[in-house]
Amino acid sequence: MGNTFGKLFRVTTFGESHGGAVGAVIDGCPPRLAIAREEIQLELDRRRPGQSSVTTPRDETDQVQILSGIFEGKTLGTPIALLVRNQDQRPEAYDHLKDVYRPSHADFTYEKKYGIRDHRGGGRSSARETVGRVAAGAVARKLLAELHQVEIVAWVRRIHDLEAILDPAAVQREAVEAQIVRCPDPEVAARMVERIHQLKEQGDSVGGVIEAVARRLPVGLGEPVFDRLEAELARAMLSLPAVKGFEVGSGFAGTYLTGSQHNDPFFLQDGNVRTRSNHSGGVQGGISNGEDLHLKVAFKPTATIARAQETVDRQGRSTELAAKGRHDPCVLPRAVPIVEAMMALVLADHLLRWRAQCG
Amino acid sequence: MGNTFGKLFRVTTFGESHGGAVGAVIDGCPPRLAIAREEIQLELDRRRPGQSSVTTPRDETDQVQILSGIFEGKTLGTPIALLVRNQDQRPEAYDHLKDVYRPSHADFTYEKKYGIRDHRGGGRSSARETVGRVAAGAVARKLLAELHQVEIVAWVRRIHDLEAILDPAAVQREAVEAQIVRCPDPEVAARMVERIHQLKEQGDSVGGVIEAVARRLPVGLGEPVFDRLEAELARAMLSLPAVKGFEVGSGFAGTYLTGSQHNDPFFLQDGNVRTRSNHSGGVQGGISNGEDLHLKVAFKPTATIARAQETVDRQGRSTELAAKGRHDPCVLPRAVPIVEAMMALVLADHLLRWRAQCG
Amino acid sequence: MGNTFGKLFRVTTFGESHGGAVGAVIDGCPPRLAIAREEIQLELDRRRPGQSSVTTPRDETDQVQILSGIFEGKTLGTPIALLVRNQDQRPEAYDHLKDVYRPSHADFTYEKKYGIRDHRGGGRSSARETVGRVAAGAVARKLLAELHQVEIVAWVRRIHDLEAILDPAAVQREAVEAQIVRCPDPEVAARMVERIHQLKEQGDSVGGVIEAVARRLPVGLGEPVFDRLEAELARAMLSLPAVKGFEVGSGFAGTYLTGSQHNDPFFLQDGNVRTRSNHSGGVQGGISNGEDLHLKVAFKPTATIARAQETVDRQGRSTELAAKGRHDPCVLPRAVPIVEAMMALVLADHLLRWRAQCG
Amino acid sequence: MGNTFGKLFRVTTFGESHGGAVGAVIDGCPPRLAIAREEIQLELDRRRPGQSSVTTPRDETDQVQILSGIFEGKTLGTPIALLVRNQDQRPEAYDHLKDVYRPSHADFTYEKKYGIRDHRGGGRSSARETVGRVAAGAVARKLLAELHQVEIVAWVRRIHDLEAILDPAAVQREAVEAQIVRCPDPEVAARMVERIHQLKEQGDSVGGVIEAVARRLPVGLGEPVFDRLEAELARAMLSLPAVKGFEVGSGFAGTYLTGSQHNDPFFLQDGNVRTRSNHSGGVQGGISNGEDLHLKVAFKPTATIARAQETVDRQGRSTELAAKGRHDPCVLPRAVPIVEAMMALVLADHLLRWRAQCG
Repeated sequence: MGNTFGKLFRVTTFGESHGGAVGAVIDGCPPRLAIAREEIQLELDRRRPGQSSVTTPRDETDQVQILSGIFEGKTLGTPIALLVRNQDQRPEAYDHLKDVYRPSHADFTYEKKYGIRDHRGGGRSSARETVGRVAAGAVARKLLAELHQVEIVAWVRRIHDLEAILDPAAVQREAVEAQIVRCPDPEVAARMVERIHQLKEQGDSVGGVIEAVARRLPVGLGEPVFDRLEAELARAMLSLPAVKGFEVGSGFAGTYLTGSQHNDPFFLQDGNVRTRSNHSGGVQGGISNGEDLHLKVAFKPTATIARAQETVDRQGRSTELAAKGRHDPCVLPRAVPIVEAMMALVLADHLLRWRAQCG
Repeated sequence: MGNTFGKLFRVTTFGESHGGAVGAVIDGCPPRLAIAREEIQLELDRRRPGQSSVTTPRDETDQVQILSGIFEGKTLGTPIALLVRNQDQRPEAYDHLKDVYRPSHADFTYEKKYGIRDHRGGGRSSARETVGRVAAGAVARKLLAELHQVEIVAWVRRIHDLEAILDPAAVQREAVEAQIVRCPDPEVAARMVERIHQLKEQGDSVGGVIEAVARRLPVGLGEPVFDRLEAELARAMLSLPAVKGFEVGSGFAGTYLTGSQHNDPFFLQDGNVRTRSNHSGGVQGGISNGEDLHLKVAFKPTATIARAQETVDRQGRSTELAAKGRHDPCVLPRAVPIVEAMMALVLADHLLRWRAQCG
Repeated sequence: MGNTFGKLFRVTTFGESHGGAVGAVIDGCPPRLAIAREEIQLELDRRRPGQSSVTTPRDETDQVQILSGIFEGKTLGTPIALLVRNQDQRPEAYDHLKDVYRPSHADFTYEKKYGIRDHRGGGRSSARETVGRVAAGAVARKLLAELHQVEIVAWVRRIHDLEAILDPAAVQREAVEAQIVRCPDPEVAARMVERIHQLKEQGDSVGGVIEAVARRLPVGLGEPVFDRLEAELARAMLSLPAVKGFEVGSGFAGTYLTGSQHNDPFFLQDGNVRTRSNHSGGVQGGISNGEDLHLKVAFKPTATIARAQETVDRQGRSTELAAKGRHDPCVLPRAVPIVEAMMALVLADHLLRWRAQCG
Repeated sequence: MGNTFGKLFRVTTFGESHGGAVGAVIDGCPPRLAIAREEIQLELDRRRPGQSSVTTPRDETDQVQILSGIFEGKTLGTPIALLVRNQDQRPEAYDHLKDVYRPSHADFTYEKKYGIRDHRGGGRSSARETVGRVAAGAVARKLLAELHQVEIVAWVRRIHDLEAILDPAAVQREAVEAQIVRCPDPEVAARMVERIHQLKEQGDSVGGVIEAVARRLPVGLGEPVFDRLEAELARAMLSLPAVKGFEVGSGFAGTYLTGSQHNDPFFLQDGNVRTRSNHSGGVQGGISNGEDLHLKVAFKPTATIARAQETVDRQGRSTELAAKGRHDPCVLPRAVPIVEAMMALVLADHLLRWRAQCG
C-alpha cells in the first residue's frame, strides 16, 4: 500500500528484481508536455548496472517502453505507463538465498511482514525498483525545466572518508558525469575509485554522502504544515534503499551555530528579496524561498558483501553467509540519478499543488 | 493542502498562533480505546510555554477540550476533535512585524506564496501549531501502548556543543522529565541550562539534537517502497519547525564504516531473530525488525533573537530588526514531547496499515 | 476513516448529534477569498431545525464560529476550522434507545461495526453531521461564485407522488426560498405541505426527489476515469443520510430512448460549442461541457416514525418501538441547502484540480 | 489525476484505446492470495469484444500478462501489474474523427480540457479502459471469495423497455451467462437480442438497466460519513462510461412509499439480526447490514450510431457525422462483468478498511 508517490504528480511503481518487468505509471502529468522516449532512456542509462568498473557487472540495458499517455510526442494528460522488461534473469543464482536472511537486508522483514517473499535478487526490496522512479523522474524533470527552467544536479560528495567539499552553486552536471564515480572533483574522484576497488577486492563495501541542489525554483513551493518541502524531500530520500540520513541546508552542522550566526539575512538584489547566506537550504517555513534548494543524503555501505557473515535461516538455525554473484561495492555513483529523480518528483508535485491552491 | 498527516490514523491540524484556537481532528482511530482528557492534557503540559526558565515566559495553560469522538471515556470510531483556545493574545505586540520579514522565519515565504499572512506571532507558521500534533499524538500513543505496549522516549542529546552520549536502550522517561532541559544526564543538563541562559542574555539562541527510541515495536511496520517506516519518520520530523536533519540508526556516522563493520548480524535469542548490533536503527528494507527504533533529529538555533539583524520589508526597503517580546532561546526542551508525538502518529498509522494488508 | 471529502478542497467533518459540537475543517481553500461569518451562517439558517411547520420542532440556532484560517475577512490559505456548539441537548430523551435498534436506522450497523455507539440522537449517524458540510459548502460556494460566477440551485421536485415538473434552466433561488417546503411551484408546494402534515399526524413520514443545477460552470471540470464529475457528485449525494438514488441528465428515463433520440447534437452559438438538448446533464466523458450541470437525488421517507414497529434489542430479544421525541416527517426541505453544499464541495475541488493539471 | 480507485485496495488503470496497451496496477492486495492468470483471463473473456452478435465485431482476444506482484501463484503483497496489449489497431479508421466532435462523446470535453486528444477510438475515453478495471476486479473478487465467500452477480434487467423483473436473491451467474445478452430470463433475453439487432440495422442504439447483488457480505463494511458503502458504489458505477443513474435498495421507487411501508423491520433468525424486507438494499447508515447488497445502474444508449447527426468540428464549423466502423449497439451485455468488477473493487477496499480500523 506504499507504492505511490505524490499527490498531484502521482507515480506508482511496480516490479520485482527478477519478475517480468519493472516500471511506473504517472497520473496527473499536465498535458502537452513534449517528451521523447530518448529523454527517459538517458536517465535510465545513467542508472543502469554495468556502466563502469565501480558498479555491478550485472548487465542490463533497461530499455524503456512507453505504453500510454504520450501521443505524437506529447503528454495527453492521461496516465503515462512506462515499462522496462527484466532481461538478465538468472533466478537459479539465488537458490542459496531461499532460506537464509542476508544481514542488513530486507529478507527477514519481508518474510515476517508478508509471510511470503520473492527471494530472487531481493524481489521488490531490490534497488532495481528504482528503475520506475528514474523513468518517472525524467518526465518530472522535463516538466520542471519547461515550466520554470529548474535545474537539478546531484553529485557524490563523500565516499567513506574521502570528501570533496565544493561550492554547491558551482557544480555542473557535465563535471559530475565526467567521473565514473560521479564526484565532480577529479582528484578526489580518482581516490574514491581506488578505494572502491580496494574494498571490493577485500570482499567489503562502502557508503557515503550525496549532495544535491535544485536551481531556479520559484518562491512558494511546499505545503505547511505537514507537507513542508523539506519534509517531502526527506521522505523521498529516506524511501530509497540504503539511505540512513538527510539534511537540508545547514543540517546537523548548523546546530553548532548560534541564531545570530545561522540566520540568513535578507537583502535586495535587482528588486528581488535574497538571503546573504543559505543555511536555510532554500526553504523557510517549509516553503521554497527562491535560493538554491540544497540537501545531503547519507547512504550506508552496501549490505551485500563477499565476506562470510553470521546469520540465521528460515528454520531458525544459526548459519553463515557469504554473498555470491554480482553486486555494487558502492551504490553512490548509480544513486546520483536516483536522488535527482526523487527531487524532480517532489518538486513537480509541489509545482502542481502550488498551481491548484495559489495559482 | 498539507495539514493532514497519516493515511489510516489521519490527523488534520488547524489554527494560527493568535487566532481563536488551535487543535486537531483525528479520523480513523479504532473504537473502544479508553482515553481520558487528562492523558491528553499531560502531554500538552510537557509542551506548554512558561514551564521553566529555559522556555519562553509566554504563559498559556493550553487546556484541551474534547469536542467529539469520545463517549463515556472511550473512542467511538468517529472523528475525535480536540480544541485548545488561544488565551495569551497580545496581537498589538506584533504590529511592528506587519511589514517586515524576520530572517530565517516564514514571513517572506508565506507572504509570497499566499499573498496574505497573519503576522501575529507567525500565524500558522508558529510552533504553536504543534499543539494539535501533541494532542493527537497522545491518543496515538495510548493506542500503541494498549495494543503492543509500545514505549516512546525522546530526549535532548546535544545543545550547541554540549552532548550527552547515552545508551539509547537505557534512557527512561522519568530521567528525562527530571531535567528542565530534558537531557537525562544531570551533569550535562546543568551545563546546557547554563549555556541557554548565557546565550539568551546575549540576545542570541541555540539549537541541538534530539534522540529518540520506540521500544517493543512489532516486526512488520512500514510500507515499501515509498512509505518505508524511516521515510515516514523523516517526513514527520522534517515537518516540524526548525528541523534541518534526520538520521535513523547509524545515520551519517555509519557512512564512515565498511559493510562488514556496519551490517547487523542476525542471531537467535529465545527463539526470536535478533541482531547483534543495531546500525539499522530498527528498520530493514523499510520495515521494523523488532529491534528498538532509533533516530536523531537536528534542530537549528531559534530564528527569533533579540540582536539586531539585517532584513527587508514588504515595500522592498532594507531595514534592521531586533525581536521584541517573548520567545524560546532554545526549542529543544519543549520539542521532546513533539518529537514523541510525531513518532506516535507515524507508528499508529502504520500499525493500522499493517492490520489492513497483513492482519 | 471516511470523514474527509475532496482531494484539493478538502473538508473533514466531526461531531456527534449530542456531543460537544459539530463542525468542519477545510484544508486547501485558496488564499485571499473574502468570506464573512454571515455568509456561512446564512446557509446554516436554511438547514437548521425548527425553521417551519414541515421540519422538526427541535430548536437550535446553530451559530457558527470561525476558529482559524480567516484573517481580517479573508482566507489565509491555511485550514479553516468552523464550529457549531450543540445546544439543545436532552440526552435523557434518548435513554429508551440505548438498547434497541431503530428500523432502517444505523443503530444496528454502528453497534456491530464499532462495538460501541453514542445512542443519543443517532450520534454520528444523525443528519446533524451535515452542519459541517453546509458550513464548508458555503465557503466552496463563495469560491465558485468569485472565480466563475457559478450559481447552484436545488429544489424539491417531488414529495411522495406530488411532483412539480419545471424547466431546470428557469428555477431561481428566490422562488425556492419563498416556499417552506422549498418547491418553487407554489401550488404543488401547498399540496406538499398538506401531505407532510397529514402523514405526520398519522405518525408516518415521506420522501421524494430533489433536483439541482449548477450554472456557468467552465468546460473541463472532472477527472477521468474514476473521478469523473458525475461520479464524484454521485458519491457526494449518496453520502447523505437517507439518499437511495442519483441521476445525472436523463438518468433512468434516458434508458427508454434510442441513441438517435438521446444524443445531444452540437451546434455553434456566438462562437461557443453548445448542445441542442442536455440529456448529458452537463457532463460528457466525465468532464463538464459548459451546459447546465443537472442532477436528481432520491431521499427515502424518514426512518423515524411515531408508529409502533417490529424490531430487536441488543440482547437479541424481539420488541416493539414507537419513536418519541422530535423529528422531521420529511427531510427534503432542509436537504435542499445540503444538496447544494455537496455540489459546491465537488465543484470547488474539481476547479482546483483543473488548475493543477491543466491551468 | 483521477485514475486511481480505492484507498487500501488501490487500483490505477492506464491506457488508450489504440495506444500500446491497457492495464492496471493493484497496490495493497494482501499477500498469499492464490490467483491464477486464468482466473483473471476468464473475466476479461466475458468483457471482450466480438463475443456475440450483440457486441461489436471488433475482435481482440485481450490476453492478460502478469508483470509483477505474483510469485509461484500467490500474491506477494507488492504491486500487481496487469497488462493487455492492444492488438486490433486500425488507427487510420479514425482519421475522419480527428477534427470532428462526436455528439454525446468525450471528444469535445477532452479537447477543451487537455488541449490535446488521442482521437483514435476515443483514446482514454474509450470503454476499452475498463479492461484494467476488469482485470483488477478479478483479483478483488478472488480475495472476497477467499476471505468471506462473497458472491457478486450482475445481470441485464432492462434493455429499452424490455424488462425482466426477477427475485434478486435467486439469480445465478450460470443463468446470466447462458444468454448472450446476459439477462437470465430466457424469454425476455430473446426479445432483447431481437431489439438490439433491429436497432442496429436502423443505425441506432439502445441502453437499459443492470441490476446486481453481493451476497454473504459481512456486517460492518462502509465508512461514514463520506465513504458510506453506497456512496462508494455510486461513485464506482458513475465512473463507468455511459452510466447516468444509480440506485441502492428501493432507489427512486422507494420515494413513493411512506416510512411505515419503507422501513425494514428487524427480526431474529437463528440468533442473527435480519430484516424482513430489504428496501435498504443491504446498507444502513452507510454500513453493510448483512442482507444482500442490491443496486441498479442506468446505461444510456450507445452514443456511437451509424445515422447522420448534427455536430461541429475543431475549426468551429457546423457539419454532419455518421459513424463508420465497429461499435456496440448496446453496451449492457459486456457491461455486466464490468459492473461486477467495480463492485468487487469497492468491497475489497472496504474489507481492508474494516480490518484496519475495527479488525
